[in-house]
Amino acid sequence: MTQQDTGRRFPTVGDGSGMTSDPRFYREELQLAFRNRGMPLEGLRYDITPTGMHYLLTHFDIPEVDPNAWNLKISGLVGNPVTLSLGDIKALPSRTEVVTMECAGNGRALFTPRSVSQPWLLEAIGTAEWTGTPLKGVLEAAGLKETAVEILFNGSDQGVQGEEVQYYQRSLTIEEATRDEVLLVYEMNGRALEPQHGYPLRLVVPGWYGMTSVKWLESIEAVGEPFNGYQMHGSYRYAQTADEPGEPVDLIRVRALMVPPGIPDFLTRTRLLDSGPVTLTGRAWAGRLGISRVETSTDGGASWSDAQLSVQPPRFAWRGWTAQWNAAAGRYTLMVRATDTEGNRQPVEPEWNIQGMGNNMVQSVDVIVE
Amino acid sequence: MTQQDTGRRFPTVGDGSGMTSDPRFYREELQLAFRNRGMPLEGLRYDITPTGMHYLLTHFDIPEVDPNAWNLKISGLVGNPVTLSLGDIKALPSRTEVVTMECAGNGRALFTPRSVSQPWLLEAIGTAEWTGTPLKGVLEAAGLKETAVEILFNGSDQGVQGEEVQYYQRSLTIEEATRDEVLLVYEMNGRALEPQHGYPLRLVVPGWYGMTSVKWLESIEAVGEPFNGYQMHGSYRYAQTADEPGEPVDLIRVRALMVPPGIPDFLTRTRLLDSGPVTLTGRAWAGRLGISRVETSTDGGASWSDAQLSVQPPRFAWRGWTAQWNAAAGRYTLMVRATDTEGNRQPVEPEWNIQGMGNNMVQSVDVIVE
Repeated sequence: MTQQDTGRRFPTVGDGSGMTSDPRFYREELQLAFRNRGMPLEGLRYDITPTGMHYLLTHFDIPEVDPNAWNLKISGLVGNPVTLSLGDIKALPSRTEVVTMECAGNGRALFTPRSVSQPWLLEAIGTAEWTGTPLKGVLEAAGLKETAVEILFNGSDQGVQGEEVQYYQRSLTIEEATRDEVLLVYEMNGRALEPQHGYPLRLVVPGWYGMTSVKWLESIEAVGEPFNGYQMHGSYRYAQTADEPGEPVDLIRVRALMVPPGIPDFLTRTRLLDSGPVTLTGRAWAGRLGISRVETSTDGGASWSDAQLSVQPPRFAWRGWTAQWNAAAGRYTLMVRATDTEGNRQPVEPEWNIQGMGNNMVQSVDVIVE
Repeated sequence: MTQQDTGRRFPTVGDGSGMTSDPRFYREELQLAFRNRGMPLEGLRYDITPTGMHYLLTHFDIPEVDPNAWNLKISGLVGNPVTLSLGDIKALPSRTEVVTMECAGNGRALFTPRSVSQPWLLEAIGTAEWTGTPLKGVLEAAGLKETAVEILFNGSDQGVQGEEVQYYQRSLTIEEATRDEVLLVYEMNGRALEPQHGYPLRLVVPGWYGMTSVKWLESIEAVGEPFNGYQMHGSYRYAQTADEPGEPVDLIRVRALMVPPGIPDFLTRTRLLDSGPVTLTGRAWAGRLGISRVETSTDGGASWSDAQLSVQPPRFAWRGWTAQWNAAAGRYTLMVRATDTEGNRQPVEPEWNIQGMGNNMVQSVDVIVE
């Protein structure tokens, strides 16, 4: 299948506009939700998310890669184009980073109208220990030329999006690609990547939304002009209309989430709590920035109290927080919001954009205290 | 929180009947889909499902269990009630079984009308290597009394379902509980259980739908009369109306699934293929029974051809199959159906029941060949 325009040959979903204000979800959205796994929010209790609990977003299919036949080509504007085996890459200096990763579309289904796409609520998150070798060293060894302006990352996952047959591809500027923390990763949480996380090799770009951390890497190319592919310009944009180009989605915005307290009702996930002292707990993160403040509300955002921040986490990892609440019988809407070290605070009202990107509005948790 | 009736205090979903014929899905259903992970169907290519790709169904929350404080109580109608630590259990004879597990609600959302619950399409499956100690030996050591008729399994996961506060509990008859293959499991795929799979100890009952394999086991009780709890009588029944008791859901019904061929369209998951020879592949399983036949159709079920079965798998594991197809340009609906060793064959039309249980109707995959 070559890269080509496919014409409009796929079934229409909804009215075909790609947008809907229906509070109910199309079957195609549900189908994506089953493929693209969220982290149940009680998973916020772990510093490191268990591998099988980490969120997953796969645009196309999980490819089957034979690690013995596989290698990584580094080509384009480099003095020494090179092809590396998995063994070659593992023999390079290794580095481990604890990274909180989040999908850029997290919160999409909380917008009205919403883009008909992967309908994330709040669960597109996770924190893992990623081990690999810094990309910077690999690029230096390949002899990156002065004429290169971007590094293009090619995955082996292929499909159709925006009516275009494509492999998943994203690029980074040279400046971003050569930051110390950008890794070619072969281990997650101390073990070889599972297939769905990019086996045998993926990119991990700490601080950026997940779309940049290309999985199932096949080749890396130094290019002389900005890459213009679908995943850079057809998607992952902050825009108000389908016609305007908008701004590119890049770094993870500040967000806090809480472990829903008490016990759940199976269907509605409304929480039931005994009255008395309750410790609310959760995590907050802000991409490359730190967390300066976390506040909770037990009255639906009418008033806020400072939560207690846990010790500083590793630089790209989420930070724990706790808050005490003396719960009397009644119904409550609990909320939490974080502020990053540059003063950005999560909005209570969603800041809408047409693709449903970067929605870091505050979480609400309905609880009944008895 | 004691076990008690909570009254009707949770939000109403839809018209409150618990059923809907709406082809769209409620937000509560979507929310469950994000918690309860499906196996992307390309995962059918693996004999053993990677841990993080296996399906998951958690009624309530994933409990946090301290393995040092944890132990397993065995009590009730036994001569020697006993409390075992995790170390005690690991010191007992160990056994590993490769087991294909499926949720009883798999296919629920393919029924019309459907029960408003976990809206599974086809992905509630997975096959793992489970290691533990046979329950039979533990019960023998405890001196099961003649007056015991069932074994009751108590999980530590607590929540509300059917308006009733409960821990997750299921029972088995003595005959079923003492089958050789029923295991108290502490390892999945050669490693300690991840929290979401029942850490530190779970039951695995090969051949049965997943609801029987109680996770986060806390205690086991030999009881003198059949257990009458919610997860036995309020749920997991084959019934035509809400009023009739129906028959209990038990063993996994025959089913085959295929790896969707070609490449997907992101939103609709319609498949795009090049014309020419195509090898269709997949798996089939039937609980405790074997697979005697797998057939595929490329014309929406108008005609069927025998697929080739792979070698016999371990007794409770899925069996591979392949079929050759010479694809000419056009649009097709591919199907696959299996027949078990007792002659049960999957239906093309769904066999409806009110809770949406055991829907093993054939899979349809829409493809475009170019």
